[in-house]
Amino acid sequence: MTVSQIDEEVAKLLELKAQLGGDDGKQTFVLKTAKGTRDYNPKQMAIREKVFNTIVSCFKRHGAETIDTPVFELKETLTGKYGEDSKLIYDLKDQGGELLSLRYDLTVPFARYLAMNKITNIKRYHIAKVYRRDNPAMTRGRYREFYQCDFDIAGQYDPMIPDAECLKIVYEILSELDLGDFHIKVNDRRILDGMFAVCGVPDEKFRTICSTVDKLDKMLWEDVKNEMVKEKGLTEEAADQIGEYVSMQGGMDLAERLLHDPKLSQSKQACAGLTDMKQLFSYLQLFQITDKVVFDLSLARGLDYYTGVIYEAVLCQTLQAPTPAPAEQNGAVSGEEGGVSVGSVAGGGRYDGLVGMFDPKGRKVPCVGVSIGIERIFSIMEQKLSAEKVRTTETQVLVASAQKNLLEERLRLTAELWNAGIKAELLYKKNPKLLTQLQHCEETGIPLVAILGEQELKDGVVKVRNVATREEVRKLYKFAAEINKFVSCC
Amino acid sequence: MTVSQIDEEVAKLLELKAQLGGDDGKQTFVLKTAKGTRDYNPKQMAIREKVFNTIVSCFKRHGAETIDTPVFELKETLTGKYGEDSKLIYDLKDQGGELLSLRYDLTVPFARYLAMNKITNIKRYHIAKVYRRDNPAMTRGRYREFYQCDFDIAGQYDPMIPDAECLKIVYEILSELDLGDFHIKVNDRRILDGMFAVCGVPDEKFRTICSTVDKLDKMLWEDVKNEMVKEKGLTEEAADQIGEYVSMQGGMDLAERLLHDPKLSQSKQACAGLTDMKQLFSYLQLFQITDKVVFDLSLARGLDYYTGVIYEAVLCQTLQAPTPAPAEQNGAVSGEEGGVSVGSVAGGGRYDGLVGMFDPKGRKVPCVGVSIGIERIFSIMEQKLSAEKVRTTETQVLVASAQKNLLEERLRLTAELWNAGIKAELLYKKNPKLLTQLQHCEETGIPLVAILGEQELKDGVVKVRNVATREEVRKLYKFAAEINKFVSCC
Repeated sequence: MTVSQIDEEVAKLLELKAQLGGDDGKQTFVLKTAKGTRDYNPKQMAIREKVFNTIVSCFKRHGAETIDTPVFELKETLTGKYGEDSKLIYDLKDQGGELLSLRYDLTVPFARYLAMNKITNIKRYHIAKVYRRDNPAMTRGRYREFYQCDFDIAGQYDPMIPDAECLKIVYEILSELDLGDFHIKVNDRRILDGMFAVCGVPDEKFRTICSTVDKLDKMLWEDVKNEMVKEKGLTEEAADQIGEYVSMQGGMDLAERLLHDPKLSQSKQACAGLTDMKQLFSYLQLFQITDKVVFDLSLARGLDYYTGVIYEAVLCQTLQAPTPAPAEQNGAVSGEEGGVSVGSVAGGGRYDGLVGMFDPKGRKVPCVGVSIGIERIFSIMEQKLSAEKVRTTETQVLVASAQKNLLEERLRLTAELWNAGIKAELLYKKNPKLLTQLQHCEETGIPLVAILGEQELKDGVVKVRNVATREEVRKLYKFAAEINKFVSCC
Repeated sequence: MTVSQIDEEVAKLLELKAQLGGDDGKQTFVLKTAKGTRDYNPKQMAIREKVFNTIVSCFKRHGAETIDTPVFELKETLTGKYGEDSKLIYDLKDQGGELLSLRYDLTVPFARYLAMNKITNIKRYHIAKVYRRDNPAMTRGRYREFYQCDFDIAGQYDPMIPDAECLKIVYEILSELDLGDFHIKVNDRRILDGMFAVCGVPDEKFRTICSTVDKLDKMLWEDVKNEMVKEKGLTEEAADQIGEYVSMQGGMDLAERLLHDPKLSQSKQACAGLTDMKQLFSYLQLFQITDKVVFDLSLARGLDYYTGVIYEAVLCQTLQAPTPAPAEQNGAVSGEEGGVSVGSVAGGGRYDGLVGMFDPKGRKVPCVGVSIGIERIFSIMEQKLSAEKVRTTETQVLVASAQKNLLEERLRLTAELWNAGIKAELLYKKNPKLLTQLQHCEETGIPLVAILGEQELKDGVVKVRNVATREEVRKLYKFAAEINKFVSCC
């Protein structure tokens, strides 16, 4: 029996037991979330909200709309889009009706949406969870349920203008999130294909050799070469020629030089890719982001559907152990070299053929997009903030009482604060101790406490204390009229 | 063969065809979303964002934290929580490993979260999609995938204080969303149970009679009575006695009166419920929301897990056909009377036993909460805004050119605007016509257009036009230094 078979048997037996009412009605549940998934607690949610705000602000700054699609699609919508990875798709049980699968990414549902609604141009972002029955590595930030943050530009436009904007977006987001130094590798599927052709790789081996090259940031060249020659049957000579090209890195100069490379320039595809690469760099110069962008011939993203420029952003920082290592989502890859983790945090590229796969007449809608590897970023932010106190509420004032029997007064004042748009709380006890109330402020970071007492009520005032400095002011307290003075002091 | 069997066969055949490559590689897909689900287009998303902002602001004003849980749970986590409705749960296919189901609501995952993390008090909200294999009625706003917006207070507190806050929240949200007049029905599971007892309903029939009473807002009393007597075997006398009680509506006065009702006061349970009801109304008076709250003995929410106060908010407005009628989510019910739809838009109650079902030692955590029926609210908002233009982007400026060959200048200025935090766009064409650029502003509601021209570039200025008024100003245009002047004009 395998481990997963055992898990399954156990689950079946427990379910049977639960149905039988087991343990005198007190059913013993396995109290856990599904394998590879997790809850987000309030602190994690506060961090998540902060990261999303930064990303969404950037997408909106670039004029993007947003859409949403269902969490599951018809199974056939996903069929034939992910190559070997299709085995990682979650299917729903056949309970009668349609056969459904959980979405594997946001790109295929986006293409389905465009074709279905006959949309030929749109700039949209989509932030949602996707599902992969992958081997989870939770401590390394790899989950079976995880967020993707996608930004895509669909439409027939002049070359490389939207592509350059995608890179600008990655640059802005990674700069604003302040995750440390990063660089963005750029390549082009056509340059890769051209390179394979001139190095003598047979057409039918392009994809498989491409996925081997894709491992270069995790494996040494020797091992990559071995896989090409021994496993995939490439000649040693072809592998060595590829090895020369994939060690090249540069900028516009490299693209220029390769356009005159005696071998590579024989490939029309490669030349088209190299010409576009030059154009791309000229736009990146106008955007002043070439300091972080590298034309890197070893970049070969896995997904089948890319047709042109591809890119991937990598953090340069050396993380300390225990390291939440790279999320390998969306084909984003990760590298580890002796305890030092370097992680991919964004990736994407051009996919001009995908929408056409959904159109009955095969009409193409050119697309280019980028996906931010948000789980990896969450992990880094959580790690950064692990020692710090992160507020999980935004409460401005706690309405407290110094004596007994003031619940009604507390309720009345709290409601007035709510009605005035002030974030306020009270403890749900009739007679809480003042100390308990002040402790609640300190634990949850509430900055102000409004303290009601018999004397203050007689005087028609309320005492407002700054929790941190213990400074106190007595404010006029005429329930409705003076509310604005109260607001201004908050 | 049934229709769903046919659908299924067709889906299987189409998938087989797709695998075989069918149609010369151009596969014919059924271009649709899964039954009972829909995409949100940008306009719908803009409305959704607006509604969520109102709701989340209210939750935050009341000091709530937020959590998130996975979209699927272990199947056994959901077992035995939903009574008859369990048949509506979506199961995942057994692909090896754990047996999983999509969440049916947010309350059971919340209870699982509390028990798993041994949390005994928290005030949290959770906005997420839930899944029910119900008969969809899309035009009436009933979907198989739909949002729930839940706010819950867990913890051992003095009676009715958190319960009153939940009602205050419903009052605030429905007022702010401006959906028209509404009222909130309140009742208590203990009053219902006490009423059933004193009317002579046998203990084992409480739940089934309760679910019949629950239909009173959709069915006439005669039909409800019929179901009780003929289908559920109640005596005519018992049914008539129930009929008298469930026609009662009032406020604190009614609770007071029923405490002295010769029959009902014989039930300890009913008395406990009525005493709490009086207490609740005293707090609602302090909150000044009794104008919309009705103590209604016919309110009997379906879900098994309620143990105390229950409530439901209903819109009073008469909707015009074609009416997106009530979403019956979370047990929220809906009523239709000859073309006039009156819909439940929020509901909830106290469930003190649910968390204990997950705790190995059965330790209870008292909880009270409310769920906002957001799909129904989306439908109403969409209907309200259907004729209006809703902006789907927030772009402030389009960077345009009046002559050819100014792409580089446009790219440079746009990047500077982005860097200054201004929401800006440009058309992705080398030489777009000025008219095309202005049309883009008008179609998408961009208020300003920055127009670059040869003369302006020579003069070091940029012309900024207000799209609506056509007013123009010439701004100094020194790429970096003058950017702030530009900002201030936006």
